[in-house]
Amino acid sequence: MSEYTLALIGFGGVNRALAQLALENNSRWKSELGFELKVVGVCDLFLGSVVNPKGVDLTKLCALPSKKGSLGCFPGGRTEACAEDVIRLSGANIAVEATFTNLVDGQPARDYCRLALSLGMHVVTTNKGPVAFEAVGLKKEAAKHGSFFEFEGSVMSGTPIIALAKDSLAGAEIIGFEGILNGTSNFVLSCMEAEGTDFDSAIKNAQESGYAEADPTADVDGYDVRLKVVILANELLGADLVPSNVRCKGIRDLSLSQLTSAVDNGSRWKLIGSAEKTCAGTVQAIVEPKLVPLNNPLAVVSGAANAVTFKTRLLGDVTVRGPGAGRIETAYALLSDIIRIHKTKLGGKQ
Amino acid sequence: MSEYTLALIGFGGVNRALAQLALENNSRWKSELGFELKVVGVCDLFLGSVVNPKGVDLTKLCALPSKKGSLGCFPGGRTEACAEDVIRLSGANIAVEATFTNLVDGQPARDYCRLALSLGMHVVTTNKGPVAFEAVGLKKEAAKHGSFFEFEGSVMSGTPIIALAKDSLAGAEIIGFEGILNGTSNFVLSCMEAEGTDFDSAIKNAQESGYAEADPTADVDGYDVRLKVVILANELLGADLVPSNVRCKGIRDLSLSQLTSAVDNGSRWKLIGSAEKTCAGTVQAIVEPKLVPLNNPLAVVSGAANAVTFKTRLLGDVTVRGPGAGRIETAYALLSDIIRIHKTKLGGKQ
Repeated sequence: MSEYTLALIGFGGVNRALAQLALENNSRWKSELGFELKVVGVCDLFLGSVVNPKGVDLTKLCALPSKKGSLGCFPGGRTEACAEDVIRLSGANIAVEATFTNLVDGQPARDYCRLALSLGMHVVTTNKGPVAFEAVGLKKEAAKHGSFFEFEGSVMSGTPIIALAKDSLAGAEIIGFEGILNGTSNFVLSCMEAEGTDFDSAIKNAQESGYAEADPTADVDGYDVRLKVVILANELLGADLVPSNVRCKGIRDLSLSQLTSAVDNGSRWKLIGSAEKTCAGTVQAIVEPKLVPLNNPLAVVSGAANAVTFKTRLLGDVTVRGPGAGRIETAYALLSDIIRIHKTKLGGKQ
Repeated sequence: MSEYTLALIGFGGVNRALAQLALENNSRWKSELGFELKVVGVCDLFLGSVVNPKGVDLTKLCALPSKKGSLGCFPGGRTEACAEDVIRLSGANIAVEATFTNLVDGQPARDYCRLALSLGMHVVTTNKGPVAFEAVGLKKEAAKHGSFFEFEGSVMSGTPIIALAKDSLAGAEIIGFEGILNGTSNFVLSCMEAEGTDFDSAIKNAQESGYAEADPTADVDGYDVRLKVVILANELLGADLVPSNVRCKGIRDLSLSQLTSAVDNGSRWKLIGSAEKTCAGTVQAIVEPKLVPLNNPLAVVSGAANAVTFKTRLLGDVTVRGPGAGRIETAYALLSDIIRIHKTKLGGKQ
């Protein structure tokens, strides 16, 4: 039986859900997965930080009020956030990076990941930034120390599409993919179609239903999908892209009449992120609204659901559909990364 | 670099396709997967058998005419089939069982698998029989020798649903599944709906299109799906079922008017194989036509496609759709089993 000690960098919904899962399932995981999780450090821009190599009380942590500086009340706690101290001083095996995604350069999460890896820790993250901007470098740093840099949750939340593509489809030769990788924009399109409303009303509806941020730019203009496309293209197709390499067009210009006349003609507009290997050996990636025939599995992915179709040489198309968001679902991605590390290391670094 | 030596038991479409894949890809596999495949024995009820520990000529094997006893022309060849001799004398690392599926008791494939395992060989198979009737026993026999009994291709051809469920969804707690697991019956239903024909005409159409056997009983009466449900329920839900435990009803009694009125009412009839854990800790499995709402991903799986939805506690539903048949696709399942063995053994038994 192994015990993995975690430094939680960011304590928003996802890392909170991971702590909750650990609290509720540790004793079962011991017997079923062969390990349990202990939190030895937490850091959050708003809540402050705590370092306790003996283990932060999980019950108290899960009940932590969302109040500025509230981590200060723990033994070893401070009201200011200091991610570097938490990474350096907690003695964790695994840094769990779940801070906000910076669309411009992935910082400061990239620095957190690099620091943790340079200290020999494993890093698991749900943050698209470090992966889209620096996966190759961070994986190299991990390899130098015999550690892992894992990021299943950065693309489709807990739906294990990276594991599926890399492990279960090994040898099938993935030559491309296309996917609906943003629930907000998909919800907006489905809403316009179903309710017959225009873009602005659909956005308002999405905001009221909790599916869109106050500023929906990253979602509806395709920037979120672009990071995911870069992550998948680099990881699965051996590309070497950064986000600015990928042409990106969102859904703002789609009119209601375009959507409805598409359906009348046997297809549906979807915001599609895709990439494929070209004959020349390069990888072409793009994010744009596309007309998808109704018999394509992606055409019937409606609302906030996500899906991706892998195009393979030996198997043809394999489509996976599952949650693309959600606190617990995304926390599960972190758990699945830890399981992967555990299985590969057969007990891991203690 | 490893070399795996194969005894091909059965030389119909699937093992022929595997031989063809090896012929075309061995040099690439050496560098990309870390192994190559050599055929050291082949046996087929119709074609005869051959044993050659130095390796059967793959080019000649792939060009073998479908003529009774034609394996007799190889060095070491005989015009009669003798699977036991091929297993015993070939010195193969891996027996590749791809003979016909016996719906009644899984024989003689079970005996072939057991013999190979008892000699310390790994067994990979696409044959539902041995898995549905004896997976637990065969896995025990494999474990005794430190070998593997793998059967990805027994449920959804090359679509890696068992690997996905066991590896990539580890820890998500699968509590049930439901799937469209037979392409023939699904083709028949789609055909009735689309063409407005009755069951008998749709069957004829399926036969003419190569989607149905001369005797379509196993497909349209649900017996094929039942074996697959047993395989998945035992492997993923820890059940202990044999096929006769599972209530099974096929699609013969569905009328055209039932199908069309379902669509008018927002759902679609599908032949569904499903199982779920009950509160009492048992597993309930069934095969029967079900009304599936049109917004369910399974409702839009038409024609010969297959799909399965895994129901999980942490992630909710994850649906995988992909090929459920095809020579190359099913041969890929065997390759993926060999990759799994290779990765787990890190080089395997030479």
